[in-house]
Amino acid sequence: MSQTPKQSAEHPVPTSADVARLAGVSRATVSYVLNNTSAVRISEPTRRRVREAAEELGYVPHAAARSLRAGHTRMVLLPAAHVPVGPLYSRFFNELQWALRRLDYTVVQYGSLGLDGDEAARAWAELRPVAVVSLGEVALTPHGVGVLKRSGAKAVITLGPERVEGAHSLVMDQREVGGCAAAHLIGRGYRNIGVLMPDEPGLELFSRPRLEGATEAAMRTGARIEPLTMSYDEESAAALAADWRGLGLDAVYAYNDEYAMLLMRALQDEGVAIPRETAVMGADDLLLGKLLRPRLSTVQIDLVTGQRLAGLVDRVVRDPGAEPERHDLMRARAVHRESS
Amino acid sequence: MSQTPKQSAEHPVPTSADVARLAGVSRATVSYVLNNTSAVRISEPTRRRVREAAEELGYVPHAAARSLRAGHTRMVLLPAAHVPVGPLYSRFFNELQWALRRLDYTVVQYGSLGLDGDEAARAWAELRPVAVVSLGEVALTPHGVGVLKRSGAKAVITLGPERVEGAHSLVMDQREVGGCAAAHLIGRGYRNIGVLMPDEPGLELFSRPRLEGATEAAMRTGARIEPLTMSYDEESAAALAADWRGLGLDAVYAYNDEYAMLLMRALQDEGVAIPRETAVMGADDLLLGKLLRPRLSTVQIDLVTGQRLAGLVDRVVRDPGAEPERHDLMRARAVHRESS
Repeated sequence: MSQTPKQSAEHPVPTSADVARLAGVSRATVSYVLNNTSAVRISEPTRRRVREAAEELGYVPHAAARSLRAGHTRMVLLPAAHVPVGPLYSRFFNELQWALRRLDYTVVQYGSLGLDGDEAARAWAELRPVAVVSLGEVALTPHGVGVLKRSGAKAVITLGPERVEGAHSLVMDQREVGGCAAAHLIGRGYRNIGVLMPDEPGLELFSRPRLEGATEAAMRTGARIEPLTMSYDEESAAALAADWRGLGLDAVYAYNDEYAMLLMRALQDEGVAIPRETAVMGADDLLLGKLLRPRLSTVQIDLVTGQRLAGLVDRVVRDPGAEPERHDLMRARAVHRESS
Repeated sequence: MSQTPKQSAEHPVPTSADVARLAGVSRATVSYVLNNTSAVRISEPTRRRVREAAEELGYVPHAAARSLRAGHTRMVLLPAAHVPVGPLYSRFFNELQWALRRLDYTVVQYGSLGLDGDEAARAWAELRPVAVVSLGEVALTPHGVGVLKRSGAKAVITLGPERVEGAHSLVMDQREVGGCAAAHLIGRGYRNIGVLMPDEPGLELFSRPRLEGATEAAMRTGARIEPLTMSYDEESAAALAADWRGLGLDAVYAYNDEYAMLLMRALQDEGVAIPRETAVMGADDLLLGKLLRPRLSTVQIDLVTGQRLAGLVDRVVRDPGAEPERHDLMRARAVHRESS
């Protein structure tokens, strides 16, 4: 096995041997200097010579070689999102990246589009991350968690609707969101409640448990829950609105604020009075929901902070033998405005 | 240098040697089978034995070791977005991932939050990607492009407001968007045009050239351009709206549809008639912009397709010596609705 990447005639890839030659030192010295090893005493002029030689040749260390030598990486693997990411999630994600970087981890996102849980776990394991934080894009199984741990991952943390055996699980039970929306509507006297299910692929992970939560909340009260399907486009909203009065509904929980805004406008265009004839409820507490008239009622969802999640990653990496923990994170509350 | 990651007592990491022992074959055979090397003839029963042994032990190949052996990877590195990602971009991004996967590349996103262009290039180079597609999150310099190429990257492609020397550049000149918005407003008779600059960090990359484009379009006509600052919150919009009449503006291009919706509502709440007293224009052609009344005029922006970008990546990887190309991609057109 060769440590040196193949060289092409056009772009010869400089190696640590080239740096050592130019600086007049050993390869070991190059490695010590560029990896900032403090265990070995090397004079400042030598360090400078090595850095200048590396700069001149355009040499950068090979992360793979380094991680093979060290037997592990500081890489935290986060699967990349493959559904549209709203401002809430984006802020959480930036916070998480910053906090992990401050703890000296490298954050790598890895596309897992089209892979099932076990395929994804295998692909991730090949990168030998020290930690994997799965944000629910892929349904990781206990088998997948085992694959990752056997490949050397010290922390496997899942953030999603359900606990995954063997992993530290941050459970965000989406049923809470639907339950909260339905309870709000029932509390305000509505009894025939539509629950909108987006037709777009990838969102069932959220929409199905939200429907379940609404159904559970209604069962205790005798209210009726009616699942409805709509795509995120004006035609689909208009078609649903055209048949609205035949459905016999007095309220609708429309998945999130964007779908709710779209449906509310379509209902208004059909002459349906909001909330007198039909109450409308979204979720996510988007700023834009306050711009329509009537102002949209919503469910506010608290995400875990990136800071806190980064702290958990670091704690588990340092103590990988600890029993997997389960934390329930979902905090949802109804925000009453004018549409309900 | 050891090829074997360090083992802990709790989670011994299975190696290819363990698989070889269990299957009763050589390590080379394990490597041939698990990397699907077709150059070597190995009987189907042996292949099966190796696969079963790997499965039983939970062994997965080490991507780093494999890329060191091969001298290169099939990794395409995409810097991770660190500003909120809208539905347009998200769709483009998924398409790109799918298309690259079909071409047998692995897509890795890498957080580069807080790094400047050269720091980011160095961090990316350490991963030895075969291709880097920089989507404008980081201002890659010609020096950074050189670092990446010398580390073995065969394709360095930038997608952003400007050409980067040495890289294949897909130039999306954001000035087009601002120019298009201003030209639309001027064409409809407005002469005193505010241009909204979001106060949020990270958006200057888009907002500054959009302002430039608007200014250039106005210069040819004698219309006045007035830069304005606003944060994406109701308080900031209300403060701007409260002083609106003192500004002497008859139109505003408000960066994008979200800012435009927020400002338009604040102006309406101040009693400013849209578009009679002030025309409002957004950009991005969001579905939600059609839900307000009056319906929001906007600039529709065509993104390059993920499919096409993946094709370019593959073409450059196969022919890395080709002269860097520059493609101008921005296609923007004004969509007139009711607010202008």
